Amino acid sequence: MRPWWPPRPCQAACSSSCCATAASKPTQRSGGRKGGQAQASWARQRFAEEFTQQHFKHLKSYSFDAHDLQGNCEHFMGVAQVPVGLAGPLTVNGEHAQGDFLIPMATTEGTLVASYNRGMQVLNLCGGVKCTVIGDAMQRAPVFVFSDARGARDFGKWVADNLERIRPEAESTSRIAKLQYIDTYLANKFAYLRFNFSTGDAAGQNMVGRATFAACSWILANYGGPKVEHFYLESNFTTDKKASQINVMRTRGKRVTAEAVIKRDILQQRMRVTPEQLAYHGQVSNVGAFLSGANNNGAHSANGITALFIATGQDVANVSESSAGVLYSEVTKEGDLYINITTPSLIVATHGGGTGLATQNECLRLLGCTGRGTVYKFAEIVAGVVLAGELSLGAAISSSDWVSSHEQYGRNR
Amino acid sequence: MRPWWPPRPCQAACSSSCCATAASKPTQRSGGRKGGQAQASWARQRFAEEFTQQHFKHLKSYSFDAHDLQGNCEHFMGVAQVPVGLAGPLTVNGEHAQGDFLIPMATTEGTLVASYNRGMQVLNLCGGVKCTVIGDAMQRAPVFVFSDARGARDFGKWVADNLERIRPEAESTSRIAKLQYIDTYLANKFAYLRFNFSTGDAAGQNMVGRATFAACSWILANYGGPKVEHFYLESNFTTDKKASQINVMRTRGKRVTAEAVIKRDILQQRMRVTPEQLAYHGQVSNVGAFLSGANNNGAHSANGITALFIATGQDVANVSESSAGVLYSEVTKEGDLYINITTPSLIVATHGGGTGLATQNECLRLLGCTGRGTVYKFAEIVAGVVLAGELSLGAAISSSDWVSSHEQYGRNR
Amino acid sequence: MRPWWPPRPCQAACSSSCCATAASKPTQRSGGRKGGQAQASWARQRFAEEFTQQHFKHLKSYSFDAHDLQGNCEHFMGVAQVPVGLAGPLTVNGEHAQGDFLIPMATTEGTLVASYNRGMQVLNLCGGVKCTVIGDAMQRAPVFVFSDARGARDFGKWVADNLERIRPEAESTSRIAKLQYIDTYLANKFAYLRFNFSTGDAAGQNMVGRATFAACSWILANYGGPKVEHFYLESNFTTDKKASQINVMRTRGKRVTAEAVIKRDILQQRMRVTPEQLAYHGQVSNVGAFLSGANNNGAHSANGITALFIATGQDVANVSESSAGVLYSEVTKEGDLYINITTPSLIVATHGGGTGLATQNECLRLLGCTGRGTVYKFAEIVAGVVLAGELSLGAAISSSDWVSSHEQYGRNR
Amino acid sequence: MRPWWPPRPCQAACSSSCCATAASKPTQRSGGRKGGQAQASWARQRFAEEFTQQHFKHLKSYSFDAHDLQGNCEHFMGVAQVPVGLAGPLTVNGEHAQGDFLIPMATTEGTLVASYNRGMQVLNLCGGVKCTVIGDAMQRAPVFVFSDARGARDFGKWVADNLERIRPEAESTSRIAKLQYIDTYLANKFAYLRFNFSTGDAAGQNMVGRATFAACSWILANYGGPKVEHFYLESNFTTDKKASQINVMRTRGKRVTAEAVIKRDILQQRMRVTPEQLAYHGQVSNVGAFLSGANNNGAHSANGITALFIATGQDVANVSESSAGVLYSEVTKEGDLYINITTPSLIVATHGGGTGLATQNECLRLLGCTGRGTVYKFAEIVAGVVLAGELSLGAAISSSDWVSSHEQYGRNR
Repeated sequence: MRPWWPPRPCQAACSSSCCATAASKPTQRSGGRKGGQAQASWARQRFAEEFTQQHFKHLKSYSFDAHDLQGNCEHFMGVAQVPVGLAGPLTVNGEHAQGDFLIPMATTEGTLVASYNRGMQVLNLCGGVKCTVIGDAMQRAPVFVFSDARGARDFGKWVADNLERIRPEAESTSRIAKLQYIDTYLANKFAYLRFNFSTGDAAGQNMVGRATFAACSWILANYGGPKVEHFYLESNFTTDKKASQINVMRTRGKRVTAEAVIKRDILQQRMRVTPEQLAYHGQVSNVGAFLSGANNNGAHSANGITALFIATGQDVANVSESSAGVLYSEVTKEGDLYINITTPSLIVATHGGGTGLATQNECLRLLGCTGRGTVYKFAEIVAGVVLAGELSLGAAISSSDWVSSHEQYGRNR
Repeated sequence: MRPWWPPRPCQAACSSSCCATAASKPTQRSGGRKGGQAQASWARQRFAEEFTQQHFKHLKSYSFDAHDLQGNCEHFMGVAQVPVGLAGPLTVNGEHAQGDFLIPMATTEGTLVASYNRGMQVLNLCGGVKCTVIGDAMQRAPVFVFSDARGARDFGKWVADNLERIRPEAESTSRIAKLQYIDTYLANKFAYLRFNFSTGDAAGQNMVGRATFAACSWILANYGGPKVEHFYLESNFTTDKKASQINVMRTRGKRVTAEAVIKRDILQQRMRVTPEQLAYHGQVSNVGAFLSGANNNGAHSANGITALFIATGQDVANVSESSAGVLYSEVTKEGDLYINITTPSLIVATHGGGTGLATQNECLRLLGCTGRGTVYKFAEIVAGVVLAGELSLGAAISSSDWVSSHEQYGRNR
Repeated sequence: MRPWWPPRPCQAACSSSCCATAASKPTQRSGGRKGGQAQASWARQRFAEEFTQQHFKHLKSYSFDAHDLQGNCEHFMGVAQVPVGLAGPLTVNGEHAQGDFLIPMATTEGTLVASYNRGMQVLNLCGGVKCTVIGDAMQRAPVFVFSDARGARDFGKWVADNLERIRPEAESTSRIAKLQYIDTYLANKFAYLRFNFSTGDAAGQNMVGRATFAACSWILANYGGPKVEHFYLESNFTTDKKASQINVMRTRGKRVTAEAVIKRDILQQRMRVTPEQLAYHGQVSNVGAFLSGANNNGAHSANGITALFIATGQDVANVSESSAGVLYSEVTKEGDLYINITTPSLIVATHGGGTGLATQNECLRLLGCTGRGTVYKFAEIVAGVVLAGELSLGAAISSSDWVSSHEQYGRNR
Repeated sequence: MRPWWPPRPCQAACSSSCCATAASKPTQRSGGRKGGQAQASWARQRFAEEFTQQHFKHLKSYSFDAHDLQGNCEHFMGVAQVPVGLAGPLTVNGEHAQGDFLIPMATTEGTLVASYNRGMQVLNLCGGVKCTVIGDAMQRAPVFVFSDARGARDFGKWVADNLERIRPEAESTSRIAKLQYIDTYLANKFAYLRFNFSTGDAAGQNMVGRATFAACSWILANYGGPKVEHFYLESNFTTDKKASQINVMRTRGKRVTAEAVIKRDILQQRMRVTPEQLAYHGQVSNVGAFLSGANNNGAHSANGITALFIATGQDVANVSESSAGVLYSEVTKEGDLYINITTPSLIVATHGGGTGLATQNECLRLLGCTGRGTVYKFAEIVAGVVLAGELSLGAAISSSDWVSSHEQYGRNR
């Protein structure tokens, strides 16, 4: 998230006490390069070591040129090294991703890679996973405050009537961002506009922020109705970095579905569970999700998504939104398991943000998701991974339905 | 998340095609160590390079011994290098965290560290941030299916009546996990039990899974009532890796509050906004969050949390739960800004999971959060960082309330 | 709700055992009229009395001709007499309702009429309540099931592309129902279409059901894409007779706002509370509503709405949807209280359903809400009543902020 | 709802302008009784007629003595006559309701009674409906505001530690109300206490309000910790007259389940649908409810509940809470349909409120639900009616799955 407001980060950064100490010789093994960025980094490392009376070895070890961090991280001092495990290959039958993909998963949590890998194997044995992007929109949601409800309502109508005049303004700040539609939500004396854009291969939060800012400037200059008492570029209607019903309902980022038919015998042999058992547990879990007010009736899509996000330079804080899911399964007439999960608000990019960083770009290359027009391909792969995880954990839970013979528990313990 | 079900990851891993190719000479710069783990890692790297016809340089660069990955990542092949920026120091007035803390934030998103840093400076100028752990519980939620509602209800009553017999069973699998209470939720013919534990310095999902499994085994063996038709160790009532109302309401992990009084003149000088403006935007945003069904009425706590989670080896997928927030602000009688954010489901650890890994442990050391009894200290620091971010972004948004003089927009663009 | 499915109620009714007993002489005081309807009613009364060995006097007392119940109530046997209290007059400054209105409130709950009346008095003293209809839409939400997600997505696109062909079909079954727009929601292999209509003075559920049925028939006959595996006219996306986030967000029935500025001295004299106190409690209650997952952050709009609904022949089960509310208040620069509540899903009618029945129509006449084009007027009055109730109860709660002098409690007890 | 705050309704009432006109001769047919109540009623009728220049005949027709309205309705002027239809008998196999019950449904909506009746017939043919009360609690939720989060947390702990001292205070204002437990919810600097009581045959909102007020008075007098800055008896955590997740999750009023096994052949003959079809539609509807954020995944429980509430003198505004529902169905091994709906927040009474009024009490007598200890019986009957409605409408919707032969549509239109 490169915020859309006009910050002046550098000055702020330099006034920070942690920059106050002078730069000295580099101590890290891997970055013997010259330049202000690296120097500042050494200074910060030293400052941190003096401040805490600790010595840091690993944080300072990185293999790239700190100069290549173009706006990715202020006050850079080193790296977190997050282990990457390889799962797959996973056979994806997408509209954009077609073929077998090795999946790099960055995680510190044991069993995660193995569990996803297990799901992938089963999906592969059934011909792979069918993945489809079914929606795509990135938002910024400003709010206009009026003196009364009529002011807000009339403004909303004016916006609808002037959409074609607003559009070029909204699209003036970027060649990529295309305005799809504006939703207007009214309450009290507030008019919340939710601008929906397509953003190419970028996740697009910043692009969309600038675009909406430009559109709102034009609106404020041209709206002849009652006075806008207050205007804010954001109103919590976006809803950025937050789980929300509106994201589940109306998409944020990509809306992607992954589905497969799992053969009965494969499910039984590989996962020791029947289609009926897995589907039954899905029903019981549905009630659990409904009662607890969860934004996901599946098992754990956040696990796979997070591991892929860290590996590939996504904005990992978007796990907030991206962790939503709609799981559905049924037993087919043939006695197999149809299983399908929709991720309604998956925020992904193959351009911008952290996608160009050293290891992150390598992981995208591993997936064949660099270059123009690859974001749907990447979204499909992520969706496929999510389904593999649902299958694996869902089977593990539902096969533990061992009431009639729970004496086996002793053996498992 | 080391799953609580009985997996056999190694075998699964070894049957993966990506392990099939033979190990060969190491190619990574940083890991010239011997042993099967490293060898398997080389093999995977080579397999991946051959599979994709790509060369990977950075992924292979890590500074630790792959052998030290004790159950953190199957199919290890390298690392994601995530830039770490230093923010702070932040003055924390906690019950456990007291003093100034340098904050390591792992992120690829520009402006994030600078923005949080800006918030920290303002907090420091006002005497620091007061942080308090106000709740602590980790859950596992099994479900028992009966033939009718009465069966489920009577079972729920039996569990309540036998809590003191269940407790030792639940505490038999770990010296750390202590059973606090069991919530019973009834619907249809299902009895959902939500076991709540304290888990020491560990996040505790696995610990709690094993403990609940043990308790349920005892329950299944000892319940003399109507037959349990099905039993599942998880029912989506936990709600692990998912945002949910129950987590906001009844805590998951730590429930932490950070609060501060921001002096009017400091707010105006540093952030160009008055207490009234910031509080007003909070009100408007409240309505936005209410209408959109968001699990956080604040700005972006996920940003700071995610950056700290990656840096310190937390289970980053728990951003799903941890991103919830309850922001509250008011203008004091003295004309200052009181601001307070509660993070109701912050899942953190200073022991277990990824906390012992190389860079991750260094970041915890940077914070003084290694060793026994440090998890509350860490939770307080995270909460303080969250508030810094709320202040900074909240001020940025509310100061853009430039309607009466939006000609300045041109200058900002 | 006259269901939109093709039922054959009469046959079903006649096979009911409670109709089996022969008709006999009338026993009710008030309905000495002839005819099958009345006869059947007598038979049912007698059947009920014999069945239960009870004598019913009041149920049988009604002042209208049972023949006038044209499709309002099968198996008619008498009436519930619900007390009606008169509140007001209330001064409404609407776009449609202008002037003073006496408010008939049907309730059995003490203090309700008095409390609303108190709020109305205060509103009147401040010049009345400003009411505005800010949205209007009635829905039916069919679902089309496909064999995969692509089928659902492509179908959704086809519907969007063929909207102008669908429109005349949707409008073919009624001169009143006008199709506004169709929202398409995709998940798994399902395409949920949410048809939005305007429905004149009728609430419109049935009208809209028929219209959507006609539109879907045309769609099913003309869609040339992949096979529709299943079709259902309703999918729980409407969401009829249920509280839901989508209703709060995107309107169901009328979206109405009522607002007023309450003078500080009037508030203090009449309600013993300052604007600051009432606004402060609003803030604290906001957090309560947010944590508990309520669909209304106000006090009790359901009370006034229900009383008006019963009095005027609305479909009272729509209290489910209509009870949602978005309360907002602030202290003005002049030190007065600005208070505003939006009712986002108020389902009202002045034509059809129970609006033509004897007492119900009299209550609508009392409000001047009979005849064509009166539904917005009625909606505005309801909204004004709701605000009166919020003011009254809000003040009662916030003025009990008696901590510093809670010894007065003894006097109140 | 007789509010729990200390109102003085009479004075408020008398200062209303609608009472200002002098009383005159009675004009209503049915109430030739003497006394102030009746006189005031005549005066209001005349005032209303003069005010609106309308003549009201039916409103004035009621069969009871206005004097018997003991605190049910201020400013009484007449009655709403709501048609009552008889459905059933319904065979209920409850723990409290056992046998056949004629169901009085007060509604103005056509087809409703017939549809419920249809469902009852099918339930009867399958042996009736099994109903069970699985929870019972009525709440009041005060809030205590402190100067910081620690104050709130420590207070919460004190309350837990002093529960047994609080209990007698809470139970001092009523012989009926029994304190079950207090939930404490913390956020920001607020401590929300949610008192849970059992309330005998009364719905109990007022009883519980008084009880909580007494408990809080004691708490405020005895808590020796940091100052309580503000106290409010209600915080929107109750959540009275509102739909909420907490009500679905943790019960409000009675939590009741109704369940039945519907024989395949009966379902097919009577409802033209197979168990598989009905269960399938349930699955598709589940997804719809999940996406739209509905508080009920069933069809329309509000319809039956509202009709019974009006008929029997319940607080009809509680339809807000009572309309929540958790529907679950499955096809049994024998090929029949198991169907079950839990109503998690059904607020009912057989004593107090409107239950003693003329027609309302007759309807309760019709159900055999007058006298002490009948509230569970009544709750079971309501639950059974709800299931009948789910079955009937669910079958109607799922049997319209006529895609393969939709030419029949023409015949139905």
